[in-house]
Amino acid sequence: MIIHISQNACENQIDEITQFVESMGLNAHRSNGSNRIILGLTGDVSKVDVNTLKKYHIVEGVYRITAPYKKANRQFHEKDSIIDIGGVKIGGPHFLMCAGPCSVENETDTIELAKKLKASGANALRGGAFKPRTSPYSFQGLGVEGLKILNEAKKETGLPIVSELMGTEHLDTFVDMVDVIQIGARNMQNFDLLKAIGQTDKPILLKRGMSAKIEEWLMSAEYILAGGNKNVIFCERGIRTFEDATRNTLDIQAVPVVQKESHLPIVVDPSHAAGVRYVIPSMAKAAVMAGANGLQIEVHQNPEKAWSDGQQSLTPEEFSDLMSTIQLLLQMEGKTL
Amino acid sequence: MIIHISQNACENQIDEITQFVESMGLNAHRSNGSNRIILGLTGDVSKVDVNTLKKYHIVEGVYRITAPYKKANRQFHEKDSIIDIGGVKIGGPHFLMCAGPCSVENETDTIELAKKLKASGANALRGGAFKPRTSPYSFQGLGVEGLKILNEAKKETGLPIVSELMGTEHLDTFVDMVDVIQIGARNMQNFDLLKAIGQTDKPILLKRGMSAKIEEWLMSAEYILAGGNKNVIFCERGIRTFEDATRNTLDIQAVPVVQKESHLPIVVDPSHAAGVRYVIPSMAKAAVMAGANGLQIEVHQNPEKAWSDGQQSLTPEEFSDLMSTIQLLLQMEGKTL
Amino acid sequence: MIIHISQNACENQIDEITQFVESMGLNAHRSNGSNRIILGLTGDVSKVDVNTLKKYHIVEGVYRITAPYKKANRQFHEKDSIIDIGGVKIGGPHFLMCAGPCSVENETDTIELAKKLKASGANALRGGAFKPRTSPYSFQGLGVEGLKILNEAKKETGLPIVSELMGTEHLDTFVDMVDVIQIGARNMQNFDLLKAIGQTDKPILLKRGMSAKIEEWLMSAEYILAGGNKNVIFCERGIRTFEDATRNTLDIQAVPVVQKESHLPIVVDPSHAAGVRYVIPSMAKAAVMAGANGLQIEVHQNPEKAWSDGQQSLTPEEFSDLMSTIQLLLQMEGKTL
Amino acid sequence: MIIHISQNACENQIDEITQFVESMGLNAHRSNGSNRIILGLTGDVSKVDVNTLKKYHIVEGVYRITAPYKKANRQFHEKDSIIDIGGVKIGGPHFLMCAGPCSVENETDTIELAKKLKASGANALRGGAFKPRTSPYSFQGLGVEGLKILNEAKKETGLPIVSELMGTEHLDTFVDMVDVIQIGARNMQNFDLLKAIGQTDKPILLKRGMSAKIEEWLMSAEYILAGGNKNVIFCERGIRTFEDATRNTLDIQAVPVVQKESHLPIVVDPSHAAGVRYVIPSMAKAAVMAGANGLQIEVHQNPEKAWSDGQQSLTPEEFSDLMSTIQLLLQMEGKTL
Repeated sequence: MIIHISQNACENQIDEITQFVESMGLNAHRSNGSNRIILGLTGDVSKVDVNTLKKYHIVEGVYRITAPYKKANRQFHEKDSIIDIGGVKIGGPHFLMCAGPCSVENETDTIELAKKLKASGANALRGGAFKPRTSPYSFQGLGVEGLKILNEAKKETGLPIVSELMGTEHLDTFVDMVDVIQIGARNMQNFDLLKAIGQTDKPILLKRGMSAKIEEWLMSAEYILAGGNKNVIFCERGIRTFEDATRNTLDIQAVPVVQKESHLPIVVDPSHAAGVRYVIPSMAKAAVMAGANGLQIEVHQNPEKAWSDGQQSLTPEEFSDLMSTIQLLLQMEGKTL
Repeated sequence: MIIHISQNACENQIDEITQFVESMGLNAHRSNGSNRIILGLTGDVSKVDVNTLKKYHIVEGVYRITAPYKKANRQFHEKDSIIDIGGVKIGGPHFLMCAGPCSVENETDTIELAKKLKASGANALRGGAFKPRTSPYSFQGLGVEGLKILNEAKKETGLPIVSELMGTEHLDTFVDMVDVIQIGARNMQNFDLLKAIGQTDKPILLKRGMSAKIEEWLMSAEYILAGGNKNVIFCERGIRTFEDATRNTLDIQAVPVVQKESHLPIVVDPSHAAGVRYVIPSMAKAAVMAGANGLQIEVHQNPEKAWSDGQQSLTPEEFSDLMSTIQLLLQMEGKTL
Repeated sequence: MIIHISQNACENQIDEITQFVESMGLNAHRSNGSNRIILGLTGDVSKVDVNTLKKYHIVEGVYRITAPYKKANRQFHEKDSIIDIGGVKIGGPHFLMCAGPCSVENETDTIELAKKLKASGANALRGGAFKPRTSPYSFQGLGVEGLKILNEAKKETGLPIVSELMGTEHLDTFVDMVDVIQIGARNMQNFDLLKAIGQTDKPILLKRGMSAKIEEWLMSAEYILAGGNKNVIFCERGIRTFEDATRNTLDIQAVPVVQKESHLPIVVDPSHAAGVRYVIPSMAKAAVMAGANGLQIEVHQNPEKAWSDGQQSLTPEEFSDLMSTIQLLLQMEGKTL
Repeated sequence: MIIHISQNACENQIDEITQFVESMGLNAHRSNGSNRIILGLTGDVSKVDVNTLKKYHIVEGVYRITAPYKKANRQFHEKDSIIDIGGVKIGGPHFLMCAGPCSVENETDTIELAKKLKASGANALRGGAFKPRTSPYSFQGLGVEGLKILNEAKKETGLPIVSELMGTEHLDTFVDMVDVIQIGARNMQNFDLLKAIGQTDKPILLKRGMSAKIEEWLMSAEYILAGGNKNVIFCERGIRTFEDATRNTLDIQAVPVVQKESHLPIVVDPSHAAGVRYVIPSMAKAAVMAGANGLQIEVHQNPEKAWSDGQQSLTPEEFSDLMSTIQLLLQMEGKTL
């Protein structure tokens, strides 16, 4: 970390900053430039908040050289992390193909759909039991009943279960009843929740917040890792921009960027990014070639009857068609389901 | 709400939609246009999700005419809501001037600062005890100890207290110990938290999410109101855009827009929008003339020693200067502190 | 187009709007709803500006049902347009692989590079002669001299030439000396320039403006088509968002969206979207699988010595490696170079 | 400017960068840190493109310390620039109140309106003669005929004229016929046009591009100043964000930021930012208290009959009311019309 100090600064002002820096266990190396004084900080600067230094009037700029995340950082963990979710691996050469309905609606349909998905090549089942809805008047999910239905589908198919947790209240239930806890975009910086799941060892699917910079997303993973839970999977699901032809803008560049910065796997959710059916298959294929470690896709047996997100759900037949192409692409990429 | 249906639709497909609509307690009025069939829905459409209708293949478009919020809607509550926070009123002609440190640090400084703020004209004291921080390694706040310190300052000055609640775990403590519960930008769509605070009657300061559309913000207020708590105050604190000369972009137009759509008061927080000290005073004055119902400003006795956000805190002297102008502007606007 | 009129409107106010609408050669069909009066407009509404109708106080809303573009609209031209650029076809099954340096620097290097690109499979050569630069102090391009060099490279390789035109002054020169006129992102709504190139029959590569909605982009193509020039190729090169880990955010969803709305081909430029070398190959492959009709990629023989954009240029070797994979993907997609 | 070089770099690679830097007339000062080598550049770095340095593989980061604009920079020109537009001053204590119709429609109305505006306190007249329209089928303005009408209004009232120039073709006509040449948001980076107007000494009103960072906007001014024309006035007119309740998001913080960075005046256009009438008066008042050097507001005698932008035009009566308050605010701010 580099601090630029105005050349008009008095020595005792510079001393104050130096002492402050040293009080955090860091070393400050001073050099006098022609226009300013430069302090180079060494030590564990991941714990230093850039703004804490900008508050001094004599500071002209603070430049972070090393990333503020440590446990999520590929620099300190070169090899791809491989995460086991109920017997299915994800990361490195292992590809996650997670599919299922937006909301769990009833047992018969869920089991029947899960069987079809497995037959098409899916290796995990998603389903919403607790639903984050913009309106308090919209359907809020079946709750624990939904989790029970997902477990029946797991019994029949062996597919591990991915479902969204919205608050700490139901954490123990989720630890018991799901294989992967999904944290939704709106909760990406719900720090109380991140701390709580960091205390478990349950795999976490961490969706990117709608306006989260990649660095902030990595920092949210860092919260979970700092608590001791190493099993974090990123999920890019579109960011909010000015474009309104699609629900969100799929930031597909996030795939290579996250993979360069971190050893943790990243999957892509084209359903929530697009918000419309016809965009999804081409984006799923694109995500594979972008190097993603997996996909999450909404499928519903009868999208026109879905209780939520029907307009962005594929039918089982459309999903099956898509999987034929994806299998070929995975072969080219040297990955396996 | 208006649904456009393709002219290629079969009668039984149209019947299916009509029945679905009627199953929600609404009426559907059909008219046949030259290029499409139009269904006009009447009844309480606030509970209808536009996407639920878009999932039908024969639907070409769905247009909402009335807003999806009801209790927050000025259409059904013409007069400005006036909210009482520990004896201080906000809304209509009553202006809220809330100031204080980003984080509470210790009792002596907090009390001394509170006295100065009150002398300058502030009528509420803000202070962070539980802090949402991007990094798990940053200072996370004094916790309950911080709330105790704020209460000591309240005893000395009479200023009601505003502090941020980050999760449901400490809700009871906050109901006991603060006058206004602040919900931070990152939790604006933490629906579990919104539902919980909706069960209390404590005034809520609801900050706008960094990428929340105004309509979504109103829907988050609707969550609280739907629970029975009528005491919601909006707080515009900047939105995330491409511009990086300031920390966020202050959406000052949100003031007249929210006031047209809703009867609830809206305050502006220029400190978090700007992220740099020199921008704050002009923005505070601008917000008053934009018609805001209040301001929230960070003040620290010695910004260079602040534990957080020092770079965006005014000194008590700068705050006092600013208040002289603001008092004049409030007079022009016919508002009082 | 549908106009909603307040139920409080007087008859003579409604008459005024009706007459205004009819004065534009349209028909207005009135129906009286329970809460408002609805006017449905028929005729060529592509020429009607929504805002022109919103100006009336009694108008509550205006909803466009048909898109405002006509000649660019797939609805009126179902089959993919196929455009010939100096003997190379683009559109439908024909894929454009356009590569070359950001700026043309000298003849020897340009010819040598063009030969390598052709050998790797490129079928068009890009090169900047007139450069749009943020700073007036940056290198502004070789000008006409650059176009001459590109033509020497064309003589040696047969590759058609793509180069950017920045204003009407050099239009005749470009018509003579290039095969495709590129219009840069910053000029996407330079309407004088769009009108001028619409008067030629030269193929146009129309880059998307940094904050242009897809609909606006289609309208800029409409300007060119309205002038009589049918040869427009879209180029997605990233949009501006809050994310700063990459130079721009590649809106890869624009590929299926544009292809649904329009019959014109769309190519992807991953170099300008990413702004950093390591992101480019995966994005190029992703774009092919997203269904793009072509790619534009910056290649430089020695990126470290490039006069501009060296940090986002591939080497000829990296480009050749990438092409091997792309050839396989094109086969899967049923497309040929 | 500071360059960080990897500690794995060979000496001859470092030499190459050093020589490159020196070939641009700069000096490079090397210091060896514990983790990297640091090169500090001195000399006129305003001409150095950061990306030109990032292209070297051994470069880990490049940090600009001084702004890339020079003639627009307040650092080298401490006092506010004061610009004379046809006898009216703007800058420092001189406030510009520019008002008028979106499009000039006919002589009688224009003159009548100009008289009313002057009577209310306006000191400049705006009016569009050449109109940038998203659709080629929308009204494109009266052209030179519109400029003649504006000149008739000037004869009657003495108000200097502001009108938008869209391309170099009509530059001479504008130099003859207007007092201020307006460059629209869509042309902010039309560099050919910026260079051309830089060769004149006509005052320029430079609107901010819809997605232009403040630094880019200052660089566009630098293009004009570099040509020799010192008379540049900035105009903030809203930026494009995800929020769609208003047409654009007024970035009111741009006012203090631009004034800190530059000595040139900045005016605010609340009409184009809001896009709806009811938001405009409060924003105009807010802009004055934000410290703006002027306002540009659309006024039409009969907004419901306006040929363009009627929905965002005030009536002369609304404008007159607004001016009463603005006069009081200007007094408080120590500014005069």
